[in-house]
Amino acid sequence: RLGREGNKIGAIIAVDAMGGDNAPLMVVAGALMAATDSGVKCTLVGDETAIKPLLTGAGTTKSTLDEIEIVHAQQVVNMTDLPTQIIRKKQSSLAIAYGLVKDGKADAIYSAGNSGALVVGGKHILGLIDGVERPGLLVRFPTLTGREVIILDAGASTDYMAKDLVVLARMGKVFAREVMGIENPSIAFLNIGEEAFKGDEAVRRAYKLLKQTDLNFVGNIEGNKIMDGIVDIVVCDGFVGNAILKSAEGTAGFLMSLLKEEIPKGIAGKIGGFLLKPAFRRVRKHIDWEERGGGVILGYKGNVFIGHGRSDVKAIQNGLIFSEEIGRADLWSKIEKELIASGI
Amino acid sequence: RLGREGNKIGAIIAVDAMGGDNAPLMVVAGALMAATDSGVKCTLVGDETAIKPLLTGAGTTKSTLDEIEIVHAQQVVNMTDLPTQIIRKKQSSLAIAYGLVKDGKADAIYSAGNSGALVVGGKHILGLIDGVERPGLLVRFPTLTGREVIILDAGASTDYMAKDLVVLARMGKVFAREVMGIENPSIAFLNIGEEAFKGDEAVRRAYKLLKQTDLNFVGNIEGNKIMDGIVDIVVCDGFVGNAILKSAEGTAGFLMSLLKEEIPKGIAGKIGGFLLKPAFRRVRKHIDWEERGGGVILGYKGNVFIGHGRSDVKAIQNGLIFSEEIGRADLWSKIEKELIASGI
Repeated sequence: RLGREGNKIGAIIAVDAMGGDNAPLMVVAGALMAATDSGVKCTLVGDETAIKPLLTGAGTTKSTLDEIEIVHAQQVVNMTDLPTQIIRKKQSSLAIAYGLVKDGKADAIYSAGNSGALVVGGKHILGLIDGVERPGLLVRFPTLTGREVIILDAGASTDYMAKDLVVLARMGKVFAREVMGIENPSIAFLNIGEEAFKGDEAVRRAYKLLKQTDLNFVGNIEGNKIMDGIVDIVVCDGFVGNAILKSAEGTAGFLMSLLKEEIPKGIAGKIGGFLLKPAFRRVRKHIDWEERGGGVILGYKGNVFIGHGRSDVKAIQNGLIFSEEIGRADLWSKIEKELIASGI
Repeated sequence: RLGREGNKIGAIIAVDAMGGDNAPLMVVAGALMAATDSGVKCTLVGDETAIKPLLTGAGTTKSTLDEIEIVHAQQVVNMTDLPTQIIRKKQSSLAIAYGLVKDGKADAIYSAGNSGALVVGGKHILGLIDGVERPGLLVRFPTLTGREVIILDAGASTDYMAKDLVVLARMGKVFAREVMGIENPSIAFLNIGEEAFKGDEAVRRAYKLLKQTDLNFVGNIEGNKIMDGIVDIVVCDGFVGNAILKSAEGTAGFLMSLLKEEIPKGIAGKIGGFLLKPAFRRVRKHIDWEERGGGVILGYKGNVFIGHGRSDVKAIQNGLIFSEEIGRADLWSKIEKELIASGI
């Protein structure tokens, strides 16, 4: 696919410039960084009078500005809006950005705004791929072996039925193959035990269904093994996926606080703490999956990236680079092909 | 309630001496410790020829032996047995220990054995309290404020309906009041967002139901806030509860491994690591909920304590002391009273 200038290969990202705790400032800054460092082409959608002055601020080169367009939007879906507000606010930056993807003017959408509205907007504006009833949020997580593990669904949908979990597994496989280059990724269900008879009804039934497919299904995995790096994809209901990720986040914060408290106030503790500070800093960075910028929602007829609301410039830049990857990979249509081929 | 000798107040614990990875050795040792240190009265159920020599081994005093009885059992429910094997193995240590509770010869059962069999046995031998359809595993977890938080259900049941979650909340309240002395504990649902409209169908409906009760319901809590110590009881489906606890465990292990790797090999790292070793050790101990010995299964017509399979002597001792507390509190009949009074 040729880029806008006809001379570069790269996907165009429709960026909801008004979405996120620090929008539009941080979003515009992130887009500039992504354009400068990685040549990511962004179409910033939002209040033109707010965005333009930020763009033309100090230090922006002509060639960077070439990668960035602005599309005006007069409304905003706020963080406190009900998700369904996306349907009413047709002139919102989120709705217009979605429209660009739908009309083929952009290859992916990026938003760090109201995540519920992003989910509803995907269903309403792009529509679900045939065979998909529940879109799934895919996030990548560090492991002990250094390779990343995919958690899917990390919170886009709830109330999964067995067949939804099977669709989720297949979508995850396409992502791993097309974006991460893993040809035959290993897939496991998150469960409360390793045996096939463990778990709730949906997982028990999905286990039997997945066993009959061509997928590299390796069985159940328990929550304490996810970060061992022994499987590529962990499939679960979005309620559970969200809960485990937040539990991991809470535990990390808790441990760091405890360690700080436990480090004695005396000279030994001061010296020890000082000497280990760089190690602590690296660990904190390593476990901070917000550094990766967010996650991808799979299941829509279009490529959708969701950034964390409190993303800083670095996280937004990373999210945009990630968005460009899924746009360039033509992810959603690969998923559609896979689902058709599998007879779902 | 008078003890066996008629001169001590304390509950009698029916101990499944054959249950657990290191049974009967560790279980007998734990019972001896609990008897010696805390005067806990145990009835050890299991293979008499294996248990007796352990009991009369070096250093056991006459007065300690007074607290301990043996009831012979010729069968064992193995860790690899299907949970339903408890029904067939009527002469197993687990089934006979359950029988002692049912017949009023013990006030609580303790087992570190096959947890699925313990759940099935509770339903089959003791029966469920009227109004309870899903028994819930209660565990206590450390928090940043120092007070403990209750997680309920941590993995006994799955496929919760809204009304089951309400029953769970009420059972948790009785535990907090009777065992921890918290008169009006605050209760929250684990959810993927704080708003009432978030979550799966069961939680959304349970939210509305619980709002109408006299319980101190404070709304939804997300997984990253559990360890902040802001609520007393976190209520969730057992699938979710199990997943978040295991995720927390995995994260803790992951972080500790990372920290070790990140601590530089040079002299600064060596000194830093050495100076902070006591702090690391205290943190590890603090987060190790297995130190607490296990959890309580609520909902049966009898008091049931489940120890971790890989419990060491200390964990078993702690579990037995905890079991004695719930036995002495007459927990299950307080729950029954509460459910009747609430009209469930």
